[in-house]
Amino acid sequence: MKELKIDVTLSTEKKQKPSFDNLEFGKSFTDHMFVWNYTEGKGWHDARIIPYQPITLDPAATVFHYGQTVFEGLKAYLTKDEQILLFRPDENMKRFNRSNDRLCMPELDEEGALSALKQLIQIDREWIPSGEGTSLYIRPFMIATEAFLGVHPANSYQFMIILSPVGAYYKEGINPVKIAVESEYVRAVAGGTGNAKTAGNYAASLKASEIASENGYSQVLWLDGRENQYIEEVGSMNVFFKINGEVITPELNGSILEGITRKSIIELLNYMNIPVVERRISIHEIEQAYRDGVLEEAFGTGTAAVISPIGEFLWKNEKMAVNNGEIGPLSQKLYDTLTGIQNGTKEDPFGWSVQI
Amino acid sequence: MKELKIDVTLSTEKKQKPSFDNLEFGKSFTDHMFVWNYTEGKGWHDARIIPYQPITLDPAATVFHYGQTVFEGLKAYLTKDEQILLFRPDENMKRFNRSNDRLCMPELDEEGALSALKQLIQIDREWIPSGEGTSLYIRPFMIATEAFLGVHPANSYQFMIILSPVGAYYKEGINPVKIAVESEYVRAVAGGTGNAKTAGNYAASLKASEIASENGYSQVLWLDGRENQYIEEVGSMNVFFKINGEVITPELNGSILEGITRKSIIELLNYMNIPVVERRISIHEIEQAYRDGVLEEAFGTGTAAVISPIGEFLWKNEKMAVNNGEIGPLSQKLYDTLTGIQNGTKEDPFGWSVQI
Repeated sequence: MKELKIDVTLSTEKKQKPSFDNLEFGKSFTDHMFVWNYTEGKGWHDARIIPYQPITLDPAATVFHYGQTVFEGLKAYLTKDEQILLFRPDENMKRFNRSNDRLCMPELDEEGALSALKQLIQIDREWIPSGEGTSLYIRPFMIATEAFLGVHPANSYQFMIILSPVGAYYKEGINPVKIAVESEYVRAVAGGTGNAKTAGNYAASLKASEIASENGYSQVLWLDGRENQYIEEVGSMNVFFKINGEVITPELNGSILEGITRKSIIELLNYMNIPVVERRISIHEIEQAYRDGVLEEAFGTGTAAVISPIGEFLWKNEKMAVNNGEIGPLSQKLYDTLTGIQNGTKEDPFGWSVQI
Repeated sequence: MKELKIDVTLSTEKKQKPSFDNLEFGKSFTDHMFVWNYTEGKGWHDARIIPYQPITLDPAATVFHYGQTVFEGLKAYLTKDEQILLFRPDENMKRFNRSNDRLCMPELDEEGALSALKQLIQIDREWIPSGEGTSLYIRPFMIATEAFLGVHPANSYQFMIILSPVGAYYKEGINPVKIAVESEYVRAVAGGTGNAKTAGNYAASLKASEIASENGYSQVLWLDGRENQYIEEVGSMNVFFKINGEVITPELNGSILEGITRKSIIELLNYMNIPVVERRISIHEIEQAYRDGVLEEAFGTGTAAVISPIGEFLWKNEKMAVNNGEIGPLSQKLYDTLTGIQNGTKEDPFGWSVQI
C-alpha cells in the first residue's frame, strides 16, 4: 500500500482517558484527528494529523444548509498479543466512494485514506481498549465547506477521521430488543439516498425511533416507501430472519444500505453451509411465519452492535415474539464467530482482518 | 410583538460591500449574524448579535454525521421611500417549527426569532440593495451541536440568522428554463422528510440536477417516489401548470414542500378570479395536454426566484415546448404582481408585507 504523506502535529497535552471498563458509545474521542482538504481545481491537499480540535466553518458552509456529507464507521481491535486488527477496512473505503458519487462529492483516494487511518491509530494506539466487547470506533467523514447559499455541489470539502474508544453498543449486552414495525414514516425509497451513508437518512429516521421509544420499543422495522410492506432495515442496521431453517435478508434494492456486516454474515452463513437468501420479503410473510410457528430467529447487523437479536415485533397492535424473546442459537453463534474473527480470538478463514 | 432581549456586539471593521449592480446569489454576507443556543434542560439562551464569523463545532457534532438541521429562506426589500419590507415572515417561522418537529429538534420561539431577525436587519440595513430585482436574502437555520456519535436527537442546538444581498436568482432574468423530467432519482417520498426544509432533501437532489445540467437542462421535474408518475416539484421549487385556462399545482401530500410563494400564488389567483386547483397531476396528463395543445404555461415558485417560467420539458427523449419557449402572460403577470407587493411598488390587498 502507498503511504500517504502526512504532516503530523502531536498534542502537547494528553487528554484524560475515560475508564475503559465502562465506556459509553461515541462519547469520548482520542488525542488526535486526521484532516484532509479538497479544493476544486487543486484536488486533495494538506493531509495532516493534528490534536483533536473543533472544526471552524463559515456559517454559509454547504454542509449546514444542503447536507452534502458522507461518513463511514469501522472498528479497530487490540488482540491479546497487542496487535491491532481492522475488519475489512477496504470495504468501508469503497462504500465511502459509492456514497460520494451519489452525493456529488469528490472521489476519495481510498489507499491514501486507509494509510492515514492506520497512521492515526498508531499514534493514538493507547486509546484502544482491550476488554471484552470493546474496540476503537473509527469515524471517517467528509463535509462540504464552501461558503455559498445555492443548491449545487460545493467546490471545497474536508475529509476527517476521528476515533472513539467504545464498549458494546447496547449496554445490556446482546439481549434481544423489541422492535416496532413502522407503517407511517419511511427511511428511504428507491431513487433516493438510502443506499448511501449520508446524514439525511439518519435525520429522517429520528422521528419514528422517538415514537417507538416512547412506546417502549428499542427501534423500528422500516418498510419500503412504495408499497409499505417490504422489509428494508431495522433501526440503522440491516436485518435477517431465520424462517423454517432458512436465513433471509432483504435484497439490495437501492434504498437499503449495503452493510459490510450484512455481507460478512451472508458469507459466513455460506461458509457454515446454512441456507441464506437475499430476496424481497414482506411483513405479511413474517406475520405468516410467526403464525405458523416457523419464525425462528431475527436479528439486525451493523458495525456498532455487530449482531442485535430481535425478541419481539409489534405489528398493528399485535406482539409477535421471536424465540420466546430469547437470543437464538444461530444469532449467538454468528455473534461469537464474527466478533471472534474481529478481535483475533477466532480463526479468520476469509482474510477479513487486517493487521496494522 | 414581544422584543427578544439580545446582547449586541458590533463589528469594529465594516466589510467591503459587493457591487449592488452585479450581485451573485448567496455569495456575500453582511457584517453581523444572530446566534441563539439551546441546551436540553436549560432551553434557549444567549441570544446575541455578533460580527459575522466562523462557527466552531466539535468534529463529532450531530449536524456533520446525522444531519439534524433545518433552514428557512425569506427576503427583505427596500422601498423607494427607504422602508424595509418583509414578505409573510410569520409563515417562515411557522414552517421552521413544522420542520423542527419532523427532525426532532426543539421548538423555536417564533416571535423571539422574528424579533431577532428584525433587529439584525436594522443593524445591517445598509446592506439591503435597492435595484430592480434585488433584495436582502435572509437565512435562518438551526443545527445540532452535541458532540456524540449515536443516532438519536442531540441535546444541544444553535439557531442562527445570516443575511446576503442578492440579485435575481437567475442572472438571465425570468427567461423560461428548460426542465428534464426525472425518472430515476427521487427527491422525497411520503413518510420521509420532503415536506420539511432540511438539508438532506437538497443533498438528495444534487445528482439528478447534475445529470440534467450536463444534458443542457436547468433543473429536473421530480416525480413521486411511489409510482414515478405524479408531479411533485421542479428543482427546489413548487410547480404550477396552466392547462386549458385552469391553473393546477400538485396537492400537498407529505413529500412536497409547503411553499410560501406557492401559497401566495394560489391566494393571488383566487383574488384574480383565475381558476386554480390543488390536485394530483401525472406526467401523462401533462403529456396529453401538450399533445392536445392546451398546455398553456408552466412555472416554478420559490422565495429565491419568485416565479421561474418553464419553456420546455424533456420527457422520455421528447421535447415538449411550453408557449413556444416564451414566458406566458399569466407567469409574467404573477411575477410582476407578487414582486410588486414584495418590494412595495404595488398595492398589497392581503396584508402580506410587514414593515420593519
